[in-house]
Amino acid sequence: MTKVVLNVEGMSCMHCVNAVKRAVGSLKGVAETTVDLAGKKVIVEFDPALVSINSVKEAIVDQGYSVV
Amino acid sequence: MTKVVLNVEGMSCMHCVNAVKRAVGSLKGVAETTVDLAGKKVIVEFDPALVSINSVKEAIVDQGYSVV
Repeated sequence: MTKVVLNVEGMSCMHCVNAVKRAVGSLKGVAETTVDLAGKKVIVEFDPALVSINSVKEAIVDQGYSVV
Repeated sequence: MTKVVLNVEGMSCMHCVNAVKRAVGSLKGVAETTVDLAGKKVIVEFDPALVSINSVKEAIVDQGYSVV
């Protein structure tokens, strides 16, 4: 299991937090998704054999946010 | 039909806009709901014989926003 902390811009409320958690959490291989709204961070624990960090980033971008 | 402009605090993104539009728009008697996110305004066109402005305000507050 790998843990990565992503800096994500654009999340402004609990709806955004839920949208990101839902999108990332639905990827096969993602074990846990934590969003720090104030800190603008998304912490993802995933199995790199099942999902790439690029797929995780894409899922966040698809929701309308920027991974910086 | 009556048109009222409400000043609403706390809406920060399109998810918020949609939550407010959905909540207010589902009230019987509401004909149109427009949200001005940047201007912090919710414009509601409704039939006062079917729904009160207080019910409209309650629907917004129930979503977690403040009518000021």
